Amino acid sequence: MGQHHTFTPTAKDYGYTFGGAMPVATLRSGDTLSTYTEDCFGGAVTTVDDLPSQVCTMPYLNPVTGPFFIDDAEPGDTLAVHLLSLVPARTIGVSSTFPHFGALTSTTHTATLQPPLEERVWLYDIDAEAGVVRYRARNGDYTADLALEPMHGTVGVAPAGFEARSSITCDAHGGNMDTPQLRAGTTLYLGVNVHGAMLSLGDGHARQGHGEASGVAVEVAMHTTLAVEVIKGVPTRWPRIESDTAIMSVGCARPLEDAFRISQHDLVGWTAELTGLDTLDAYQLVAQAGTAPVGNVCDPNYTMLACLPKPLLRGATVYDGAHQRLRATPQAAAPGIGAR
Amino acid sequence: MGQHHTFTPTAKDYGYTFGGAMPVATLRSGDTLSTYTEDCFGGAVTTVDDLPSQVCTMPYLNPVTGPFFIDDAEPGDTLAVHLLSLVPARTIGVSSTFPHFGALTSTTHTATLQPPLEERVWLYDIDAEAGVVRYRARNGDYTADLALEPMHGTVGVAPAGFEARSSITCDAHGGNMDTPQLRAGTTLYLGVNVHGAMLSLGDGHARQGHGEASGVAVEVAMHTTLAVEVIKGVPTRWPRIESDTAIMSVGCARPLEDAFRISQHDLVGWTAELTGLDTLDAYQLVAQAGTAPVGNVCDPNYTMLACLPKPLLRGATVYDGAHQRLRATPQAAAPGIGAR
Amino acid sequence: MGQHHTFTPTAKDYGYTFGGAMPVATLRSGDTLSTYTEDCFGGAVTTVDDLPSQVCTMPYLNPVTGPFFIDDAEPGDTLAVHLLSLVPARTIGVSSTFPHFGALTSTTHTATLQPPLEERVWLYDIDAEAGVVRYRARNGDYTADLALEPMHGTVGVAPAGFEARSSITCDAHGGNMDTPQLRAGTTLYLGVNVHGAMLSLGDGHARQGHGEASGVAVEVAMHTTLAVEVIKGVPTRWPRIESDTAIMSVGCARPLEDAFRISQHDLVGWTAELTGLDTLDAYQLVAQAGTAPVGNVCDPNYTMLACLPKPLLRGATVYDGAHQRLRATPQAAAPGIGAR
Amino acid sequence: MGQHHTFTPTAKDYGYTFGGAMPVATLRSGDTLSTYTEDCFGGAVTTVDDLPSQVCTMPYLNPVTGPFFIDDAEPGDTLAVHLLSLVPARTIGVSSTFPHFGALTSTTHTATLQPPLEERVWLYDIDAEAGVVRYRARNGDYTADLALEPMHGTVGVAPAGFEARSSITCDAHGGNMDTPQLRAGTTLYLGVNVHGAMLSLGDGHARQGHGEASGVAVEVAMHTTLAVEVIKGVPTRWPRIESDTAIMSVGCARPLEDAFRISQHDLVGWTAELTGLDTLDAYQLVAQAGTAPVGNVCDPNYTMLACLPKPLLRGATVYDGAHQRLRATPQAAAPGIGAR
Repeated sequence: MGQHHTFTPTAKDYGYTFGGAMPVATLRSGDTLSTYTEDCFGGAVTTVDDLPSQVCTMPYLNPVTGPFFIDDAEPGDTLAVHLLSLVPARTIGVSSTFPHFGALTSTTHTATLQPPLEERVWLYDIDAEAGVVRYRARNGDYTADLALEPMHGTVGVAPAGFEARSSITCDAHGGNMDTPQLRAGTTLYLGVNVHGAMLSLGDGHARQGHGEASGVAVEVAMHTTLAVEVIKGVPTRWPRIESDTAIMSVGCARPLEDAFRISQHDLVGWTAELTGLDTLDAYQLVAQAGTAPVGNVCDPNYTMLACLPKPLLRGATVYDGAHQRLRATPQAAAPGIGAR
Repeated sequence: MGQHHTFTPTAKDYGYTFGGAMPVATLRSGDTLSTYTEDCFGGAVTTVDDLPSQVCTMPYLNPVTGPFFIDDAEPGDTLAVHLLSLVPARTIGVSSTFPHFGALTSTTHTATLQPPLEERVWLYDIDAEAGVVRYRARNGDYTADLALEPMHGTVGVAPAGFEARSSITCDAHGGNMDTPQLRAGTTLYLGVNVHGAMLSLGDGHARQGHGEASGVAVEVAMHTTLAVEVIKGVPTRWPRIESDTAIMSVGCARPLEDAFRISQHDLVGWTAELTGLDTLDAYQLVAQAGTAPVGNVCDPNYTMLACLPKPLLRGATVYDGAHQRLRATPQAAAPGIGAR
Repeated sequence: MGQHHTFTPTAKDYGYTFGGAMPVATLRSGDTLSTYTEDCFGGAVTTVDDLPSQVCTMPYLNPVTGPFFIDDAEPGDTLAVHLLSLVPARTIGVSSTFPHFGALTSTTHTATLQPPLEERVWLYDIDAEAGVVRYRARNGDYTADLALEPMHGTVGVAPAGFEARSSITCDAHGGNMDTPQLRAGTTLYLGVNVHGAMLSLGDGHARQGHGEASGVAVEVAMHTTLAVEVIKGVPTRWPRIESDTAIMSVGCARPLEDAFRISQHDLVGWTAELTGLDTLDAYQLVAQAGTAPVGNVCDPNYTMLACLPKPLLRGATVYDGAHQRLRATPQAAAPGIGAR
Repeated sequence: MGQHHTFTPTAKDYGYTFGGAMPVATLRSGDTLSTYTEDCFGGAVTTVDDLPSQVCTMPYLNPVTGPFFIDDAEPGDTLAVHLLSLVPARTIGVSSTFPHFGALTSTTHTATLQPPLEERVWLYDIDAEAGVVRYRARNGDYTADLALEPMHGTVGVAPAGFEARSSITCDAHGGNMDTPQLRAGTTLYLGVNVHGAMLSLGDGHARQGHGEASGVAVEVAMHTTLAVEVIKGVPTRWPRIESDTAIMSVGCARPLEDAFRISQHDLVGWTAELTGLDTLDAYQLVAQAGTAPVGNVCDPNYTMLACLPKPLLRGATVYDGAHQRLRATPQAAAPGIGAR
């Protein structure tokens, strides 16, 4: 059984890239880690008058905790990251519009001559006990209780090819995928590109809608416990996620149909490998039985997921059983973290 | 209470466009209709040796039943089409790859110099009793039972601007949206563009995956009963769907992010109108509470849906209560059609 | 030698679609036609105070003259349309912004929550003698003389598959391609989809920039003389253009890279056919020697052209020599039309 | 007058990113540099049997020479890079197809289930004296002489936000823009993001077609002389190019319409600033008078340029006259490099 680590970053420890940064700690395959992540605004937005474009400074957005050096992880391996628990670290979550960022505004890339939308901040009450985040309209008295569904928007490793990529984008190395699937109880598989993998994470969300249309979720600092395992000699091309009920491939790209194509293509190949179906038979199965949840349609790269229910795999062993193994991590290994 | 109609098309009755065709029958607001739709191959594929590109002739693909002239429907009105029941008309559903069509192949528009994928046909056993469609691999003995979830891929009215559009595409007039949401128990709202609306439908699916990645669902002829209602003086810009639990806006476009933008934009406006929220407050609510199921990523226009759970509308009346009214259509009005 | 026709439309003669309209006159292969086209605003914008969204009524935008029934043109043939002369019919050209239309604004499809740009009209003096159109800033005294380069934005035939398509869009049938290449001295090849081909044209531009970024060119009514020829038994999949110096394939699609792919794919195949090169050798030649002028990036479908200089064809005969033949149309055949 | 530098890289000096590398030499504003760049294959392809996917190893593709530390260049400044001369360093240029790379094939991102196109190499004779590169078909005896038009596909600086980006992509920092406009006699303006700017260049092309449809140009090592100047306190958001006759903005993005939007948006703003026109008047001028040459439609980000003829600027001074000043660099400053 692995060792349990605790890492609490100080202000200078946050990173703003995947790749290009020195490790903050070392984990071994089988270890667990309890850590803390700041929200995407670096905690600078605490009232509705804290407009992000004024209180934040580029490029100091979307800080990530890490990187963690994963002992024995080498290019060509896969790093399994299992999220054991995510507990919001504050009772207030924040969201906002941001000038020329989001799906329903022109942006720096979908550039138009129109002025930006009004910048506005929303605060959400987070009631962890009740499992609820409370939306309050800024104009009028409308309120609504939405389910608290903690997730990490951003988890990734150092990219290949000597690259260092902003924590605001996602790609084959993971990063800012912004999918609600990255919640407690799921395992993320990332291809290792550099010695030590260099795992970082951040961008906790109390919840988000599909597509993150406004560009910003219900952002909150997070206490997170995770377990890692290195799967030797098994490469992974695009991020993959395993839950108790499904396997999922993640595509990160623009335009959005390429994110769809990548995810479906990866899932077809994965399904063929796990079931023994030939490629066209797997394509057909995925096309009729699969779902395709959208992640984000607002970041520099969009994300789409392709999912297949596990029963269709007829008992095939996924990544050598890493998910089941990590799922069963004894709570003793992560002291102080209650079961979900 | 409306009148019940039955219309069974003969071979010459099928259409291949929305717009540009003479009506086959007339319905009045409040009426119900029981009709039959052929599958997207015109019923020509019955064995695995019936390759669609050989047994079908362009443009005689995706036949639609109709158009039905809706009495009193005028440009500026909305036509509500409630699907009361969909019953597969055969016990075999068919699917296939099709040369240069689908999401995981180059196409006539995403044109490459690569040869097409192998054309292959799959037959599915449909067991309506058990609520199951059975997938069988063409190579090997893999089989899997998937849920029978009957839906119509194609429902629409005549487009605006004197256009006639192929039944293979979708746009503001509806058409080949290919979303599993068009199932029994839901109401589709379509803006009326021409005198009589000219409703047509077809392309029954025993089920489909999200995105219809292979370009073809589990295709089957369908016995369908629906009810219509004209909502006078209320225009509808893009197709909308209402179920018992959610409202949904449909975007049809390329690239896929434009389909996303259209659907989210429409849902934000609709939500604002129903709740009294201002636009940015509605944007924020949809962004955190909405889902975004993908329809098709294979047709000439892609579809994405933006959905909001009804409880967030706090009792607002949607389209003058058409869905509740049509949902309650007495079965007596549709003799021989069992309840869902 | 063919017959010369003159057709001057009256108000009721204009069409707003390709397909779905009755012919206004008949031409035979080899005939010439002198006709008149209205500007895209139907002539309704004559001062800077005539805002198009106020003086025009949807869908009565972009009127086309025609359709002309081309005798002996059958599906599977190609219609060659040679533009002999284009003479602006007015001395004032008009341009404008238009709400939520154009490349540098959000649109009905690239939908955002931002309000539209200011709607503004510009008038251009057209000096045909000097070959100049004069731009005048609306604010300030900046003026600039730009080259008069008359062209038709919109030329097409009835689409396949029983469709009727708005004159505002383009596709395999031609239509609103908005490329400066459609100028006097060039031949447009269009695949014939219906008995009689049904040729229409309109949308004269005194000039336009590449991409038509503002959504509107320097619009002007046009006196146009053209010659037609039917090339029997030769199908054409996408529009093609031949000038004295180059062959060009036109792609119409979204996203823009699909328009690029279609045009390059078509040009590679055409080059292979004309030169005897195999596909990959033709691909390589086009990739190093070709140009790719952008047509429009504002209409419902975008256009890109793929061009190859004719000397690389080493004397191959293009469409049975139609361009040379039509280029040599004696002026006597088109009385009153001066040589270019 | 500046100092002249010569830098000839050894094998270990090549870089594969912009950002993340230590400088190889220092230049001061006003200095000139003569250097050497390897071809995109690192010189490994010398016969038609050297298939790139076999003789090259990822990520060691598209080596760049540099980075050069530019003294006094600070974030917020602009670096002007004037290309004085480009002389192919070999008499053979190479091109190829590459598996799943290029515009007319599915790719890693536009992922399909089709196998890649055949990988094939072409060799071109470069006759600098005659100004010609000779294409030879691999199958058959077709040959063609194309104009020798030397250019750099790849020129850039370190990106902002602590990023290091592969030399295969392009973005706001420049990089692999692959536009024929980067030829001798032009000045490239790049925003400085880091202390010292960190200029690198590579990817010489004897010529390329527009769009680089096959993914590979006529690749050749290059002897290049350039001059640099730091324009203090003037930021530049996206790459810009100035020639003797035009100003150009470069957009790098997917989908291709976003590259178009970025470039047009930047040119409109630049034109407004230089002419004093208001934004809409500048938009109108660019829309009617501008051209939009496509750069690449094959790399991870596509490039489009927006160009305006200089006479329309009515004598406005561009970047404080840097282009004229650098254009006049005395040849004495660059010994051994003949004027073009």
